[in-house]
Amino acid sequence: MSGGATLDIEELTRRVTEIFALAGLTPLQAETVAGVIVAGERDNCKSHGIYRIDGCLRTLAAGKVEPKAEPVLTDDGSSIIRVDAKGAYSPAAFAIGAPVLAERAKQQGLAALVINTCTHFSALWPEVEALNDMGLAAIAMCPSYSAVAPSGGTAPLLGTNPFAFGWPRPSQPPYVFDFATSIVARGEIELHRRAGDPLPEGWAIDAEGQPTTDPEAALDGAMLPFGGHKGSAISTMIELLAGAMIGDLTSPEALDYLGSTEILPRHGELILAFSPERFAAGRGDPFGRAEKMLDAIAGQGARLPSQRRFAARKISLSEGISLTGEEMASLDALRDTAARIGQKT
Amino acid sequence: MSGGATLDIEELTRRVTEIFALAGLTPLQAETVAGVIVAGERDNCKSHGIYRIDGCLRTLAAGKVEPKAEPVLTDDGSSIIRVDAKGAYSPAAFAIGAPVLAERAKQQGLAALVINTCTHFSALWPEVEALNDMGLAAIAMCPSYSAVAPSGGTAPLLGTNPFAFGWPRPSQPPYVFDFATSIVARGEIELHRRAGDPLPEGWAIDAEGQPTTDPEAALDGAMLPFGGHKGSAISTMIELLAGAMIGDLTSPEALDYLGSTEILPRHGELILAFSPERFAAGRGDPFGRAEKMLDAIAGQGARLPSQRRFAARKISLSEGISLTGEEMASLDALRDTAARIGQKT
Repeated sequence: MSGGATLDIEELTRRVTEIFALAGLTPLQAETVAGVIVAGERDNCKSHGIYRIDGCLRTLAAGKVEPKAEPVLTDDGSSIIRVDAKGAYSPAAFAIGAPVLAERAKQQGLAALVINTCTHFSALWPEVEALNDMGLAAIAMCPSYSAVAPSGGTAPLLGTNPFAFGWPRPSQPPYVFDFATSIVARGEIELHRRAGDPLPEGWAIDAEGQPTTDPEAALDGAMLPFGGHKGSAISTMIELLAGAMIGDLTSPEALDYLGSTEILPRHGELILAFSPERFAAGRGDPFGRAEKMLDAIAGQGARLPSQRRFAARKISLSEGISLTGEEMASLDALRDTAARIGQKT
Repeated sequence: MSGGATLDIEELTRRVTEIFALAGLTPLQAETVAGVIVAGERDNCKSHGIYRIDGCLRTLAAGKVEPKAEPVLTDDGSSIIRVDAKGAYSPAAFAIGAPVLAERAKQQGLAALVINTCTHFSALWPEVEALNDMGLAAIAMCPSYSAVAPSGGTAPLLGTNPFAFGWPRPSQPPYVFDFATSIVARGEIELHRRAGDPLPEGWAIDAEGQPTTDPEAALDGAMLPFGGHKGSAISTMIELLAGAMIGDLTSPEALDYLGSTEILPRHGELILAFSPERFAAGRGDPFGRAEKMLDAIAGQGARLPSQRRFAARKISLSEGISLTGEEMASLDALRDTAARIGQKT
């Protein structure tokens, strides 16, 4: 396969947005979905880059996402801002809710954004980073669909349930982590399957609840939580707070709704935004104190999370995003697929 | 050693409260400190039971806690309630802040309690459970003092930084977890040291940053975070949110302040309270949805966290708390120590 190319971010954004527009998404949905996918590619975070387009289109073709939906914001003046995505992809809902969330967090010190009934595929770090850019600390979490056995359990029940946190840093990218509460992201198992590589020990159990290193068997069985019973507990917290509490689907309910893990999950999301100035209330400079802590971690030679992403971003911003011939061809093929889907919707 | 006894909760509470009153604590501090210690003993959570009295008294004798301090609440009507503990033990500050936090969370949907400048020794589960009893979900977290190396690091920097979550359940104890973000609680290493038992592999590094199973070497070196880089990231989040953000000491700052890990740490604490009714906003019954999830976990044979505690509690409530002769003698000795300390304060 030949034809690799280096695209600048605007050009890749244009191409990916066009794919989703052709597929029938509203301009807001197409732009915001393309935004998070290009951000993934920009940061060399391949499992959330253009690799995700195919799943988005399959979910659309299956009628499990609403391409024409316009998310609706409800604000009753409390600490909770709600956006009903009406079945749209989550980034559109976040785009509508984030400015109101940020304003409320600055006003009240602390506020939450609840997103309901969205189709979800994106990493959470673009969202926490967007809030960090507004000077806020943020936590984001959501269920997914049953793929992980609880600690001590035997079958998929919990989702891979990502948990993300971001803290704004002066004059440099934020402190950000975003991880699956499974021992790895589901995408990692997929990548092993595609590559024909066995899984490391301890990642998964098979359909009989026995340990396995076979990616196919793992996809038929269950992944395991990170950190044993502690990771399992955090994943359960996410089911409760970002599922049951916000009146939206838990991971088993999302799987029941879809009937398949081949399609992107529909559920809700919970985002908390904190104003460090309001929390510090004049007791010193919270950002300066944080820098001392973060510098001390890095000073031991311990890597801060997301540094690999930020290094890749720096290169992408100055030199563009390099795609292989295979990736360029896949963009063309996805464009054709999107056009066919768009004609039917 | 003879003289073991079974005390009912009121009698043990009376004895422990008396110890702290003799040591010179205000009635509020003595009652609330005794409350969490007796709760630990009641739940057979020995590392937070009467074992803790000695550390509390040592910290008092060292002049690192303010026995006469009356915590001061500040409420500006925002989503943040603050209590300045003024150097008192944290349970007194929580007792003053919790009712206001609960009221604000019910009104606004979400609220935070910031406790500043407290001396901290207690588990966090008594606090999240108290909020669960008021119908709220809750998260609590705090730094401690440098004892844990960040993932990839070589020396103590992070605290054992506990993270707790509780969710109210109808007609039964809440779903509660409360764990150190170190691979084990520091108290576990202490208990191994006292018993002369080696540590399991993977718990700690020595002063040279090398793996060790020697409890003494571990106490001179560093514990490791749970769950590798993910647990390390959560622990760092706790330093930022419940240290830097709230204008209070991070774990290395707390250690600098004390100059020793023999004394209980002084720092702040962050507690978030969520009203499930407000978050659900009529989208079904959040408590009923949660029960389905929790029943499914238990239905796989996976144990929910805190079940061992709740089973012990049930026995303690009906049969009383059994203490060994050694424990009964230690209560008498602690009473004498407290009286001596009280004469000096």
